[in-house]
Amino acid sequence: MTSSAQQMFDAHRTTLEQAVEAIASRTFWTPYPESMRHYPEDAVKAAPTNLKALLNQPFTLTIPGSTQPVGGEVSPYGFELGISYEQPNPDTLIAAMQGAMRAWRDAGAAARVGVCLEILSRLNAMSPDMAQAVMHTSGQGPLMAFQAGGPHAQDRGLEAVAHAWQAMAQIPATTQWVKPQGKHAPIVMDKRFHIVPRGISLVVACSTFPTWNTYPGLFASLATGNPVILKPHPGAILPLAMTTRVAQQVLQEAGFDPCIVSLMPDTAEAPLTKRLALDPAVKLIDFTGSNAFGDWLVQNAAQAQVFAEKAGINSIIIDSVDDLNAVTANLAFSLSLYSGQMCTTPQTIYVPKGGITTAQGPLSFDDVATALASAVEAFLSDNDRACTVLGAVQSLETQARIEECRGLGDIVLESEPREHLQFAKARIHTPLILKVAAEQKAAYSEERFGPISFVVATEDTGHSIALAREVIQEEGAITLAGYTTDETVAEQLEQLAMDVAAPLSLNLDGDIFVNQSAAFSDFHATGGNPAANASLCNQAFVANRFVVVQSRRHGQPNERRV
Amino acid sequence: MTSSAQQMFDAHRTTLEQAVEAIASRTFWTPYPESMRHYPEDAVKAAPTNLKALLNQPFTLTIPGSTQPVGGEVSPYGFELGISYEQPNPDTLIAAMQGAMRAWRDAGAAARVGVCLEILSRLNAMSPDMAQAVMHTSGQGPLMAFQAGGPHAQDRGLEAVAHAWQAMAQIPATTQWVKPQGKHAPIVMDKRFHIVPRGISLVVACSTFPTWNTYPGLFASLATGNPVILKPHPGAILPLAMTTRVAQQVLQEAGFDPCIVSLMPDTAEAPLTKRLALDPAVKLIDFTGSNAFGDWLVQNAAQAQVFAEKAGINSIIIDSVDDLNAVTANLAFSLSLYSGQMCTTPQTIYVPKGGITTAQGPLSFDDVATALASAVEAFLSDNDRACTVLGAVQSLETQARIEECRGLGDIVLESEPREHLQFAKARIHTPLILKVAAEQKAAYSEERFGPISFVVATEDTGHSIALAREVIQEEGAITLAGYTTDETVAEQLEQLAMDVAAPLSLNLDGDIFVNQSAAFSDFHATGGNPAANASLCNQAFVANRFVVVQSRRHGQPNERRV
Repeated sequence: MTSSAQQMFDAHRTTLEQAVEAIASRTFWTPYPESMRHYPEDAVKAAPTNLKALLNQPFTLTIPGSTQPVGGEVSPYGFELGISYEQPNPDTLIAAMQGAMRAWRDAGAAARVGVCLEILSRLNAMSPDMAQAVMHTSGQGPLMAFQAGGPHAQDRGLEAVAHAWQAMAQIPATTQWVKPQGKHAPIVMDKRFHIVPRGISLVVACSTFPTWNTYPGLFASLATGNPVILKPHPGAILPLAMTTRVAQQVLQEAGFDPCIVSLMPDTAEAPLTKRLALDPAVKLIDFTGSNAFGDWLVQNAAQAQVFAEKAGINSIIIDSVDDLNAVTANLAFSLSLYSGQMCTTPQTIYVPKGGITTAQGPLSFDDVATALASAVEAFLSDNDRACTVLGAVQSLETQARIEECRGLGDIVLESEPREHLQFAKARIHTPLILKVAAEQKAAYSEERFGPISFVVATEDTGHSIALAREVIQEEGAITLAGYTTDETVAEQLEQLAMDVAAPLSLNLDGDIFVNQSAAFSDFHATGGNPAANASLCNQAFVANRFVVVQSRRHGQPNERRV
Repeated sequence: MTSSAQQMFDAHRTTLEQAVEAIASRTFWTPYPESMRHYPEDAVKAAPTNLKALLNQPFTLTIPGSTQPVGGEVSPYGFELGISYEQPNPDTLIAAMQGAMRAWRDAGAAARVGVCLEILSRLNAMSPDMAQAVMHTSGQGPLMAFQAGGPHAQDRGLEAVAHAWQAMAQIPATTQWVKPQGKHAPIVMDKRFHIVPRGISLVVACSTFPTWNTYPGLFASLATGNPVILKPHPGAILPLAMTTRVAQQVLQEAGFDPCIVSLMPDTAEAPLTKRLALDPAVKLIDFTGSNAFGDWLVQNAAQAQVFAEKAGINSIIIDSVDDLNAVTANLAFSLSLYSGQMCTTPQTIYVPKGGITTAQGPLSFDDVATALASAVEAFLSDNDRACTVLGAVQSLETQARIEECRGLGDIVLESEPREHLQFAKARIHTPLILKVAAEQKAAYSEERFGPISFVVATEDTGHSIALAREVIQEEGAITLAGYTTDETVAEQLEQLAMDVAAPLSLNLDGDIFVNQSAAFSDFHATGGNPAANASLCNQAFVANRFVVVQSRRHGQPNERRV
């Protein structure tokens, strides 16, 4: 191991050990504080200026071979970033990465994990700057861009490193195999076991969570020895360019070829993902995005393992509640946060048409729908808070979808544009809530990405459960929530969750929201329904990113010849 | 957990713990003795009679729905088994298995593992009978049929159970997540985590190792909650029919639906594998067989995880040796064992055309080739031993291939038929060894299944390594062996092994053979080259057979509400 990689490993060893303990106990833990006040005030204050300094000029990285300039990011807050990136030649890049792979492989697990932990540590320190990059590409509000783009993304990256370390640590470097032969001398074999990476890893990022959804694949592949190509969404390149720069710096300091982490920016007009995904050298693909493209990858990139997080119909079943105000306040936040552009945002809310029971007496279906609409209205009545929570709508397609969906049901809450004090051209829209009959399945069982949700009138809770089962089995779901005061119904929801392989949040009425998933404790997606074929993060997410190659030769008892 | 499953778990708990320890230390260990003298003498003596009692009549199992009779096995030792099996209706069977899955899932890991361990224990006790069934379907010799068909197969099954148990045990059943909130009360969430199986598991068996190659997939899937369809090769149904019967008995005794392990026999004329493999309910496929069909499965059964062990070009590189006699004696056994019908049998032996150095002085290329031929001749000079080691050729295709390959090079050793004392019609053939130039790549770089091998004349050892690298990267390999007295060359071979992801056996010249792989220590195939996409048995073999579904609700600190 190079001595600097060893130093990196030693410096972060305690963090690693705590992370390994956390993924086993699944209690709360993080080394990366989510509150901005834990970061130097100067760094937080300087971040907007630091972003400005990057705008309207080239962003350079270490790239083997020739490049061509690409770019064109536009902040959902209403201005062009004007940054130009260098797009490597794919053939040259892949050849260089394959050449660099052996040294990275032979460095061993501890060196690689040391480098990964140092990268994460430096990313953590630059969280204020990363927040600016995430905000002005994804459209996330400033607080969310800081947390989800910074420490929470780093948590997910560290979680992947911890799983990778644990998986690799299960393989002994050497062993002596001694087979008794009765009265004769035993047969003795000395064995060595090597962790061997699968090949080039392609991580295809999305525009809404450019770091959070990317770091698990990046760090799982990197720790297990695979060079990584980060393929950003053309609308959100900067966060991954910054990530690549940090990774390259650390790799170089540790004595490795910086191209082991490379950025491959492209454009909507000349996309490169399919060409990269079908390259015989690409053996691992992490993808976050549409169901159509995720399914295409699984069916066509047969030479690679594909870890795909797609979309589903996140569902809520309301059976009965203690305090409807607490419930609707909780849901108002979930529906508003980042304008419903989270893969975890609930879309379809099943409520019996005969109403529900509450501690304050029965409430009709319309009472429930109206209470939800009022809670969202009240929550967003302060425009500053509304702009902070809603963030901006990332794409024009999502903005158009709000209008397109208005006719799908009866409007319970109209979506309205809001004006941002600082960014006048920001695309800000409050949630649209529609009520529909159970029969209008086409409306609510198709993903409507953005601030669009449906309250579905069902026969009763049994019917709600049956509909959710059917829709999730067909379309998948990343989240599922239920509200009930009846433990029998709670157990039915638990069974539903197992049957459709969706994680269940039960009776959330406080400061935890269905669209939030905590690293080291919550498994994000299960990988068991059509919304995703992998989970962030579990053993299956790392175990197949490497193989074990052994050697054996005759040995002498109690003596290691190798 | 049902009390009988708990009893089964308790009864075998020590075995399980030792197996978990063995897969970590990878030292020699087994609970299933490989020597026949550890089994009751009466059972061993009765086995041939027990086989006769099964011949020429129906073999019955517990099957939901209607069935139709299939059969037609012929012993490679020259007689028809005449056994008829019931083929279930696939739709009815799959529906029944899906119905039975929930109880199997909800029973929990310990109950399922208890059942698996009890099945293995009963299979072990019937090893003498299983040996007869394996011998008279695969054609293996009696000793090999006993060991590979019995205890060694059970080892591989137990190894899979140990990996599955270890993977499931990493997921806590419950946890309490407590997130500090500064001066405020912490946020507390009570969480439950469930192991949820992926669905129906299809295990497609081969004719040569009907149990050894099947038990890993069977037990990995079963332990993790997936009902298993065993799809035997039409020529080797009996060993899996016997296995299914035992599994069904144990499942029933433990209170589960016996159809959780079901047999789906078919015929060469009306094969069912494609229909089963593409069934949307089938989420896991374990396959041992041809590259063409394995690749078809990966490309077409996109709804399933496919674990495919196919074929490759197992290679030997001879650079230099201490004692050529010891080396050729070792190789003579490897080439003769089961007439080269092992997926681990070496096929292509690279030797420098200028010869090699030995402790007794230099030897020419022809000296080496002739020494190898003489060693095989000497080893097989005793006809009884020859028949025992060679076994019988399983299929007529393999028998025909010996003749077809005679023209591919210069004959170093002719294949000759042998007569079995007890079974006059047995298909017994000694190995064919050809010598070829390095340029005759088409001859030696295509798999020639059966007792056919090539000695390839290369420029030097560097050329041997380069050729092996090229051939294995293109075609894969399950085994790789090298002979050298030079540690620098040994290190080059180690690098080659890592580069092509093939396990290396170095300088085997005693009682360990390249085609043998010991459970709990040796990884059989790596999953990293075209010969196989999975390894027997590692974490990746089990980790993706289940998903984790969690639920969470608000909790009180230091109090579990669930």
